[in-house]
Amino acid sequence: MRLSQFHLRTTKETPADAELVSHQLMLRAGMIRKLAAGLYTWSPLGLRVLRKVETVVREEMDNAGAIEMIMPTIQPRELWEETGRWEKFGGQLLKITDRKEQQFCYSPTAEEAVTDFARQELSSYKQLPVNFYQIQTKFRDEIRPRFGVMRAREFVMKDAYSFHITDEDLAREYRNMHAAYTRIFTRLGLDFRAVQADSGAIGGDASQEFHVLAESGEDSIAFSTGSDYAANVEKAQAAEPAPRGAATEAMTKVATPTQKTCEDVAALLGLPLQRTVKSVAVMTEAGFVLALVRGDHAVNEIKLGKVAGMADYRLATEAEIQAHLGSEPGFLGPIGAKQAIRVVADRDVAAMADFVVGANEAGFHLTGVNWGRDLPEPETVADIRNVIEGDKAADGGEIRLVRGIEVGHVFQLGRKYSEAMKFTVLDETGKAAAPAMGCYGIGVSRIVAAAIEQNHDANGIIWPVPMAPWTVAVCMINPKNDAAVNAAAEQLLGELQSAGIEAVLDDRGLRPGAMFADIELIGIPHRVVVSERGLAAGTFEYRARRATEAENIGRDELLARLRG
Amino acid sequence: MRLSQFHLRTTKETPADAELVSHQLMLRAGMIRKLAAGLYTWSPLGLRVLRKVETVVREEMDNAGAIEMIMPTIQPRELWEETGRWEKFGGQLLKITDRKEQQFCYSPTAEEAVTDFARQELSSYKQLPVNFYQIQTKFRDEIRPRFGVMRAREFVMKDAYSFHITDEDLAREYRNMHAAYTRIFTRLGLDFRAVQADSGAIGGDASQEFHVLAESGEDSIAFSTGSDYAANVEKAQAAEPAPRGAATEAMTKVATPTQKTCEDVAALLGLPLQRTVKSVAVMTEAGFVLALVRGDHAVNEIKLGKVAGMADYRLATEAEIQAHLGSEPGFLGPIGAKQAIRVVADRDVAAMADFVVGANEAGFHLTGVNWGRDLPEPETVADIRNVIEGDKAADGGEIRLVRGIEVGHVFQLGRKYSEAMKFTVLDETGKAAAPAMGCYGIGVSRIVAAAIEQNHDANGIIWPVPMAPWTVAVCMINPKNDAAVNAAAEQLLGELQSAGIEAVLDDRGLRPGAMFADIELIGIPHRVVVSERGLAAGTFEYRARRATEAENIGRDELLARLRG
Repeated sequence: MRLSQFHLRTTKETPADAELVSHQLMLRAGMIRKLAAGLYTWSPLGLRVLRKVETVVREEMDNAGAIEMIMPTIQPRELWEETGRWEKFGGQLLKITDRKEQQFCYSPTAEEAVTDFARQELSSYKQLPVNFYQIQTKFRDEIRPRFGVMRAREFVMKDAYSFHITDEDLAREYRNMHAAYTRIFTRLGLDFRAVQADSGAIGGDASQEFHVLAESGEDSIAFSTGSDYAANVEKAQAAEPAPRGAATEAMTKVATPTQKTCEDVAALLGLPLQRTVKSVAVMTEAGFVLALVRGDHAVNEIKLGKVAGMADYRLATEAEIQAHLGSEPGFLGPIGAKQAIRVVADRDVAAMADFVVGANEAGFHLTGVNWGRDLPEPETVADIRNVIEGDKAADGGEIRLVRGIEVGHVFQLGRKYSEAMKFTVLDETGKAAAPAMGCYGIGVSRIVAAAIEQNHDANGIIWPVPMAPWTVAVCMINPKNDAAVNAAAEQLLGELQSAGIEAVLDDRGLRPGAMFADIELIGIPHRVVVSERGLAAGTFEYRARRATEAENIGRDELLARLRG
Repeated sequence: MRLSQFHLRTTKETPADAELVSHQLMLRAGMIRKLAAGLYTWSPLGLRVLRKVETVVREEMDNAGAIEMIMPTIQPRELWEETGRWEKFGGQLLKITDRKEQQFCYSPTAEEAVTDFARQELSSYKQLPVNFYQIQTKFRDEIRPRFGVMRAREFVMKDAYSFHITDEDLAREYRNMHAAYTRIFTRLGLDFRAVQADSGAIGGDASQEFHVLAESGEDSIAFSTGSDYAANVEKAQAAEPAPRGAATEAMTKVATPTQKTCEDVAALLGLPLQRTVKSVAVMTEAGFVLALVRGDHAVNEIKLGKVAGMADYRLATEAEIQAHLGSEPGFLGPIGAKQAIRVVADRDVAAMADFVVGANEAGFHLTGVNWGRDLPEPETVADIRNVIEGDKAADGGEIRLVRGIEVGHVFQLGRKYSEAMKFTVLDETGKAAAPAMGCYGIGVSRIVAAAIEQNHDANGIIWPVPMAPWTVAVCMINPKNDAAVNAAAEQLLGELQSAGIEAVLDDRGLRPGAMFADIELIGIPHRVVVSERGLAAGTFEYRARRATEAENIGRDELLARLRG
């Protein structure tokens, strides 16, 4: 391929409305162009990268035994009514009325459509297991589409759906897909982690997310130095705390006139923040609850909501706090409430001794507080906090926090969709049985942006070779006037092709500085310069995208290096 | 690939609501499943064929220098307002309102989106010419979606758009695309014709359609035996008629009491139909017009509408006919009108002598009528008729009529879109110039159905090799119990793969009859049977899909035949 026959349009200016580096660089490299909010055209350069990702995903799905098909993007309301998701999916579902006043949606995911396909195609256990997948355009009507293709409204997704007679077989395919995803992200050259996701009612290992690690990631991920344990912060657990120490102090009321936060109280008293307890007042259907976490910890809303009796809790109002504790916020605590209240203590709080809480009196806290002596043992002890960097992990390692971009999700759906849509097959005994289902998604277009977030420098994108639009750029100096340069570049291109290395010839005739800046910006992993001077010396100038210096090397060495 | 690891579901019953053979066979072969009216899921088998077509289209577009990109399917109203097509496109445009009450449509074609892309990307003549294409899902909200994927609402289209400084360069690219399309349909193994389409205001060769020839085609196409001339019947022209002969008869009024059609009059008088003239009464803004065509010809409405003064004509009412001709329909003619009327004569009518027309008197016709003697020479002579089978063509050949399915269209758009959307580039003189545009479409999913219309028999589909899901099916007899058959089939599969021949192993363990019926139904071009008996004899049973008999042949001959 010759760049003069391609279409490339780069810009130096950083676009004003692009926050993320990947969005900025994709615009500057001319990979995408905005058509409207959350809608992007993929230019020829952008499409080359997108197709590279698609190809790796397709090959590994095929290798894993999944079978490709494709469903319509426009799907009838009736189908989505069968599962109740026409309403439940919410505002992200783009609803459409056709010329005959029939209602449809643009598929944001395809559980309904694939289950409808399956109930037409599958009637016997003999046809199971089967895993259907498609690589297709999806639409989610995001309220705030932003970050370019990272959170576009129209995007490319690989979605797979498997069908099984038994839960065990679903679990087997789930592991199979997990392994395929690991191969996909490994092949793409990405630094990633499989992370336990909060999977609602299903629990356990029935749902995992695959995250590309990047500082700009929207998700916070906890992993352990002691094993490959990793979990979304919503779900991550630290190890059980060490047993409670003995009480050594007497409970004392101290003046904290303006100190309303644990940080301020600890500073005033000269105590570590870890000695203080934060009291969070909430209301449930059964009444007032004080949730206690250590001063340096934060309540994890999902975990607290899962404690018995705490579903659908909300923060208490100031009036409710006054009525139950007789104090204004900032000085709350579990001792001296005006009415009987429920106390839910985090595991770490339950293991504390000689701690500090609010006195339920404006301007005062209590120090040296101890369970069982100054107040009853907590009725409920549970893990209700977010993990923090440095926590002990259950596997003996230490918890570390990183940020990630979710690019894949594997999920054991169970029979939710097959039962709602009355899809059964005859099992071995001749009885109608609703198959168990799994679903497995990959954000194909998002991977492109995520890869850039992880791989860039001040000069532009640095593609992992499997995603690069071309592996090598052969840059020609003065191509319009130098026949020898043309001949040498052509010959090199042929040799690279023979070696199975995808190369592009930059024959546009730009000044070297502008040409090199383009090639760096668009992230080509290897650059080779063919010049009159180099030819005279029998060398090419070679520079890897991440290298700081170029080197002059002979052809054999060049080919050896590029062959890797 | 092993069929036991694939998903195949065929049925014997012909679906009740499928009219076209291709629709019936695609359903029976399990290539597609209906999700809703005009919306089809492509099964794994169907998708294999669709991808084959896509691949050939992509390769030839790339070879022709077009550059692939991809635009959003959902496009903002504002863009379509710029060209006025938001209203003008009509009911086929699926309009959508998002959660912010912004309006969008699902792209049925992408002139607006690509022109918007181009005006962001292209600013100088140096970047031209360029031809962008995409292979993408489109939507047209058909009133009567039917015939399966032949006229689905959601479908796959390859659409390309080229940009040029000069009309000459547009014409060059148009020929380049014409040649690429010819290669595409040739490579796909289809019997097709490039046909001159009626191209409205642009005229000439600025628009051509590519049709797959099939009896079930919706379009009627005229071609000449004397050259590669072919045209849509709306546009096709016969050769100029031979010069008018001399008058030999006297004009005579004859009684035709119940004979109101040319056929009936000719039968009564014992004259060939070609001696009669049909008078069609129409009204224009300027008044009453009698259009004359030979009795065996039919008025071509598009051609008649293009005659000067005839735009927006309509058929005359009986009252208007009485007022101008003093007769009831069935006996009309150009002689003896009550008021001055305009006569538009088809070229063939103008060349007639001794002909028959209505007498403008109920129950009578005139015979032996001659121009210049019995009535004035016609004021307007033009080609206003449809060609018929057997017409002389301008190239000396004969006109033949066939039916076709439109699968491609090449079009010189000119500057309609670039001017409407204010897209200019700087030309060589530094002036802003609106580029000329071409557009080039291929109905990728429709090709699959069209190929079946052209290639099938009572047993099912007969794929041209380039579109076949697999080239060869290796059918195993008793695969579950016969290790020797398994080993031989595996070995053959390996040898075929080494020879670059795509084969599938039918290891499902069906009875031979059911297995062969499936393989014929889904249209695999070559079938090889591996059986214990064959192995004992050192032969395979081979049958080409179109052959009437199977043959037992040795391995070397088999491989030689399959290699073609």
